Amino acid sequence: MRLYNLLETDQARSRLALYLNHFLIFLILANVLAVIIESEPSIGRPHSGWFWRFEIFSVTVFLLEYLARLWCCIEKAEYQGMPAWRARLKYAVTPMALVDLIAILPFLLSLFLTLDLRYLRLLRVMRLMKLTHYFQGFNVFLSVIQKELKSITGALVVMLVLIVIAASLMYTLESQRQPEVFGSIPRSLWWAVVTMTTVGYGDVTPLTTAGRVVATFIMLIGVGLVALPAGMLAARFGEELRERKRSLHLHIEQALADGQVDEAEYQLLKDLAEKLDISDEDLEKNIALLKQSNRTGRCPLCGHQT
Amino acid sequence: MRLYNLLETDQARSRLALYLNHFLIFLILANVLAVIIESEPSIGRPHSGWFWRFEIFSVTVFLLEYLARLWCCIEKAEYQGMPAWRARLKYAVTPMALVDLIAILPFLLSLFLTLDLRYLRLLRVMRLMKLTHYFQGFNVFLSVIQKELKSITGALVVMLVLIVIAASLMYTLESQRQPEVFGSIPRSLWWAVVTMTTVGYGDVTPLTTAGRVVATFIMLIGVGLVALPAGMLAARFGEELRERKRSLHLHIEQALADGQVDEAEYQLLKDLAEKLDISDEDLEKNIALLKQSNRTGRCPLCGHQT
Amino acid sequence: MRLYNLLETDQARSRLALYLNHFLIFLILANVLAVIIESEPSIGRPHSGWFWRFEIFSVTVFLLEYLARLWCCIEKAEYQGMPAWRARLKYAVTPMALVDLIAILPFLLSLFLTLDLRYLRLLRVMRLMKLTHYFQGFNVFLSVIQKELKSITGALVVMLVLIVIAASLMYTLESQRQPEVFGSIPRSLWWAVVTMTTVGYGDVTPLTTAGRVVATFIMLIGVGLVALPAGMLAARFGEELRERKRSLHLHIEQALADGQVDEAEYQLLKDLAEKLDISDEDLEKNIALLKQSNRTGRCPLCGHQT
Amino acid sequence: MRLYNLLETDQARSRLALYLNHFLIFLILANVLAVIIESEPSIGRPHSGWFWRFEIFSVTVFLLEYLARLWCCIEKAEYQGMPAWRARLKYAVTPMALVDLIAILPFLLSLFLTLDLRYLRLLRVMRLMKLTHYFQGFNVFLSVIQKELKSITGALVVMLVLIVIAASLMYTLESQRQPEVFGSIPRSLWWAVVTMTTVGYGDVTPLTTAGRVVATFIMLIGVGLVALPAGMLAARFGEELRERKRSLHLHIEQALADGQVDEAEYQLLKDLAEKLDISDEDLEKNIALLKQSNRTGRCPLCGHQT
Repeated sequence: MRLYNLLETDQARSRLALYLNHFLIFLILANVLAVIIESEPSIGRPHSGWFWRFEIFSVTVFLLEYLARLWCCIEKAEYQGMPAWRARLKYAVTPMALVDLIAILPFLLSLFLTLDLRYLRLLRVMRLMKLTHYFQGFNVFLSVIQKELKSITGALVVMLVLIVIAASLMYTLESQRQPEVFGSIPRSLWWAVVTMTTVGYGDVTPLTTAGRVVATFIMLIGVGLVALPAGMLAARFGEELRERKRSLHLHIEQALADGQVDEAEYQLLKDLAEKLDISDEDLEKNIALLKQSNRTGRCPLCGHQT
Repeated sequence: MRLYNLLETDQARSRLALYLNHFLIFLILANVLAVIIESEPSIGRPHSGWFWRFEIFSVTVFLLEYLARLWCCIEKAEYQGMPAWRARLKYAVTPMALVDLIAILPFLLSLFLTLDLRYLRLLRVMRLMKLTHYFQGFNVFLSVIQKELKSITGALVVMLVLIVIAASLMYTLESQRQPEVFGSIPRSLWWAVVTMTTVGYGDVTPLTTAGRVVATFIMLIGVGLVALPAGMLAARFGEELRERKRSLHLHIEQALADGQVDEAEYQLLKDLAEKLDISDEDLEKNIALLKQSNRTGRCPLCGHQT
Repeated sequence: MRLYNLLETDQARSRLALYLNHFLIFLILANVLAVIIESEPSIGRPHSGWFWRFEIFSVTVFLLEYLARLWCCIEKAEYQGMPAWRARLKYAVTPMALVDLIAILPFLLSLFLTLDLRYLRLLRVMRLMKLTHYFQGFNVFLSVIQKELKSITGALVVMLVLIVIAASLMYTLESQRQPEVFGSIPRSLWWAVVTMTTVGYGDVTPLTTAGRVVATFIMLIGVGLVALPAGMLAARFGEELRERKRSLHLHIEQALADGQVDEAEYQLLKDLAEKLDISDEDLEKNIALLKQSNRTGRCPLCGHQT
Repeated sequence: MRLYNLLETDQARSRLALYLNHFLIFLILANVLAVIIESEPSIGRPHSGWFWRFEIFSVTVFLLEYLARLWCCIEKAEYQGMPAWRARLKYAVTPMALVDLIAILPFLLSLFLTLDLRYLRLLRVMRLMKLTHYFQGFNVFLSVIQKELKSITGALVVMLVLIVIAASLMYTLESQRQPEVFGSIPRSLWWAVVTMTTVGYGDVTPLTTAGRVVATFIMLIGVGLVALPAGMLAARFGEELRERKRSLHLHIEQALADGQVDEAEYQLLKDLAEKLDISDEDLEKNIALLKQSNRTGRCPLCGHQT
C-alpha cells in the first residue's frame, strides 16, 4: 500500500516525487556518460568492474521504475473503467512505455544471448530517449514541427530529387576520370549529399572542368534549398509565438471583463501561460498593458483610439 | 468506350483513379531506383536481363499513360470548342506533357541511335520530374518563390558579382604561389564558389599571408550573404501563411453573417482550406474563435472590445 | 545639339535610351567576361589581339559615356542655378561618377605606366560596379541593410571578439603540438575564421584532446552566431514587406475615400507600388480587398466587423 | 577633490568623459592587438622591449581606472545610504568590476609567479571583455537571447542528444574499419560534431557503405537542426522589433492626446526611442503617420476607418 502511494505521487507535485524525478534524470545522464567513457579502451578495460556494477545498479532502478509505472498506470483517468490487465497492456504499447522497455531490454538480452559489445552499447545510449519523460519545454518545438510537417516533407522531397539529379549529373561527367568515387550513381550520391548539406569533407571532389562547372550550380542552388526547411520552421515558430500571445490576450480580456483580475482568475491565467511557455513576467506585462488599454480605450496593438 | 471512361475518371476522385495514381507514383520511384542501382557495375551487370525487362515494362506503361492523357485532354474545360487535333497539339506543348514525353523519349531514341549509356541513364533519372503530376503540396512553396523572385534574383546577382570579385582578388594574390589552382580567374572561381557557399572542400586553399587575410574577409561577408536568400524566402513564407489565414478569416466571417455555418458553407470553407494548405483542425479552431469573438464583440486578433 | 538631346533622353524613358541602356549593360558584362577568359593563359595568349581590340573599343565607349554624362549633368534639377563648371565638379565626385571613372582609369594608366598585368585585371573586373547604374531592384535590399546596420555591426563585433578568443584558446592548447599552424595567435586566427564560418577546409585541425574538446564548443557556439546576422536581416526584411503593404493600404484607402479609384489615382498608386517593389497583380488584389471591406464594413486584416 | 569630480563626470556626458571613454576603448583594442602581434615569434622577440613598456603603461592605466571606479562607485544611486566600505565591496563583486579586475590581475600575478607565457597571453586577450562597458547596442540582442533561452536550451539539448546518438551509431559501424578515429564513442564524437555543424574538415570520414548511408541521414537531419536555434532567435528578434514599435506607438498616442507633440514630450519620446534602438528618422515617420491617422480617423496599421 505504501509503494502504491509513492508511485501515485509520481504524477503529483510532492517534494518526494520531485527528488525522485531529479534522481532518475541524473541516473540516465550518468548512465549514458558511463557507456560513452567505457567504450574508450584505455579507460574502459582497467575499470570494467566498476562500470559493470554501475550498469547492474542502473538497470535494477530502471526495471523497478518500469514495473512501478506499469503497476500504477491503471490509476490514470484515461484507463478508468477498464479491467486492470487491459489497461496495463494498453499502457505497455504507448511510445513512453516502449522507450522505457528498450532502456532495460539490452541488459536482459545480454544475459541470455552473446551480443556484439558495440551493438549493446548503441542500445544503451538509446536510454537518452527516456529523458522525454521529464522535459516539457519541447511542446512549442514539437507542435511547430507537426504543423509544418507538410511543407517540410515537401522541401525534403525537393531536396532528395535534387540530390539524385546532382548525383546522376556528376556520374555522367566524372565517372571516366574518377571511376572509384563517381563510378556509379549510388557512389556519386555520397558526393552529392556531402556537398548539398555544405559539409564538404573534400574526400571526393570533381576534377574535370565540366564537372566543376556543374558542381558550381549544384552548390549555389543546394545551399539555398538546404537552409529553407529550417527557415520555414523558424517562420512558423514566430507565427506560433504570436498566436499564443493572442490566445493569452483573449483570456486576459475575459478575466478583465469585471475590471479586475482576482486570485482565481490569476491562477487560471498562470496555468495557461505555463502551458504556452510564456514567462510570468510577460504575463504581468500583458495584463498591465490590457488594463491600461481598457482604461484609455486604446487598442493594445496599435495604440489607436477605438 | 470503356477506355475513355477510365481515362476520364483519371481527373475525378474515384477509387480506381486513386489506385492508378498510386501505381504510377510507385512505378516512377521504382524505375528511378532501378536506374540508380543498375548503374553500380557489381549489381547491374549480373542482373542486366531483369533490369531490361523492367525498363521495357515501365516505358510501355508510361507510353500508354502519355497516349491516354493526350487522347482525353480534349475533355478539359479549357479546350472545349476547339477541333480535336488543335486541342491535342496545344496540350502536347504544355510543360506537363513535355515532361511525360521526355520520360519515354530516351528509350525510343536508344532503339534507333547508339547513345552513351551514362547520358541515357541521366535522361532516365529525369523521370523523377513526372512526380510533379501528383504532388499538390508544393503550391505554397512555388507561390512564395514566385513572389520573391525579384529579391532572390537581386541577392543572386550580388552573390555572383562578389564571387567574381573574390576570384579576381585571389588570382591577383595567389597566382604566383599556386599557378596550378589560382593561375587564372576561371580557375580561382572554383575556390571562390566552394568557399562562399561554405562547402569548403579544402582541395584549394590560400597559402600566402595576404591571400589568407583577404580570404578571411571574403568568408565573413560571403557566409552572411549566401544565407540571405533562404532567410528572405522564409520571411516571405511566414507572410504567406499569415495572408492565407486572413483570407480564410474573411470567408469564415461571411459564412458566419447569419450566425451559423451550415453544411454547404462548411464544404466551401473546407475546399478553400485545402487549397490554402490549412489543416481541417486549424479550420475548426478558427471557426470557433471567430464565433466566440462575434458573440463577445471582441477582435479575434488582439482580444479587444470593438 | 543632337548629341545633347540624345544625352538628355538618357534620363527619359524613350525607346532609344532603353536600347542604349541595354547595350551598355551588355558591354559591361561582355567586358568582364572577356577579362575573366583572357586571364586563362591557354586562351588569352593565342587571341590576345582580339582581346586587345575589344578592350580598346570598350574603353572608348565607356570614356564617351563618362564625358557625355559629365556634359549633361548640368541639366539635373539639383544642379540648376549653378555655374556649369561647379555643377560638373560636384557631379564628378558623386559615387556614381567615381565608379565610372575607375572603369576607364586602368586603361589610361596602363598607357603611361607599366602595371602588373594581374592588378590591371583586378581593376578591370571592378567595372562590374558600373551595373549599379542600371539596377533598381536593390532598394528593398539596401534599405533593410541600412536599417539593421546597428544590430549587424553588433553581431559582427561579437563574432570578431569570439574569433579572437577562439584563436587565443587554440594557440594556448595546440601551439606545442603544431607550432607551424598554431604557433602564434595570428596563425591560429586562420583556423578560427575557417571553422566559425563553417567553411572547414581541413588544412588545419586540432590534434590534441584538449584542443578538440574546446574546438567542439567553439563550433557549436560559432555556428549559431554566424547564422544570426542573416536571420536578423531576414526578419527585418519581413518587417519591411509588411510596412510597405501598410503604406500602400493607407494610400489606397485615401484614393477610395470617394468610393472609386479613378484613372489619375490609379496611376499614382501604380507609381507608389513600383517604388515599393510591389507587383501590379498584388496592387489589384489589395484594391479589390479594400473595396470589399469598405462595402461590408469589415476590417481587411482580421475580417472582423468594425 | 578634483580627481573626485573627474571621476564623477565619468558617468555624465561631458566632453572630457567622452574623450576618456574613447581613449580607454582605443587602449583596450591596441592592447589586445599588441598581445596578438607579440605572440608571433618573428615580430615579438626583436621588439619585446617595446611590447613590455606598452604592457606596463596599459596595466597602469587599467589599474588607475579600476581604483577610480571603485572609489566613486559610492556615488551611485543604488548604493546611497550604505557605509562606504560595504558599497565598494558590493560593487567589487558585480560582473563589470570582476571583468576589470581580470584585466589587470594577470600582470600582477606574473610579477610573483612564473606563468606559462601562453596562458598569460590568453588572460590578456580576455581584456576584450572590458569593451562591454562601452557598448550599449547589445541590449536588443541580449534581451532576445534571454527571452528565447528556454527554446534555445531545448534545441541545444536535442542537438546534443542527436550528436551522442550519431557518434554511437558511427562507432558501431566504423570502429572495425577505422579503430584509430572511430575506436570509441568519445573519439567518434569529434566526427559527429564536425559533421553536424557542417564544418566538415574531412580529417575523419566514414569509409564503409553502411557508415556512409547512416552518415547521409545524420547530415540531412543535422543540417536542419543546427540552423534552427539561429532561426528561432531571428524570429523572436522580429517579434521584439514589432513589440518595440507598438510600445513607441502607445507613447506617441499619449503625447498626441492634445493634438500636438510639444518640446518636452518630444524629448521624452526621443529618450524612449534611443532606449529601444529606434532611429530618430523612424520616430519622426511614426509621429507623422499617427498624426495623419488621428486627423483622418483611420487605423495606422490597416488604414481602415475606425
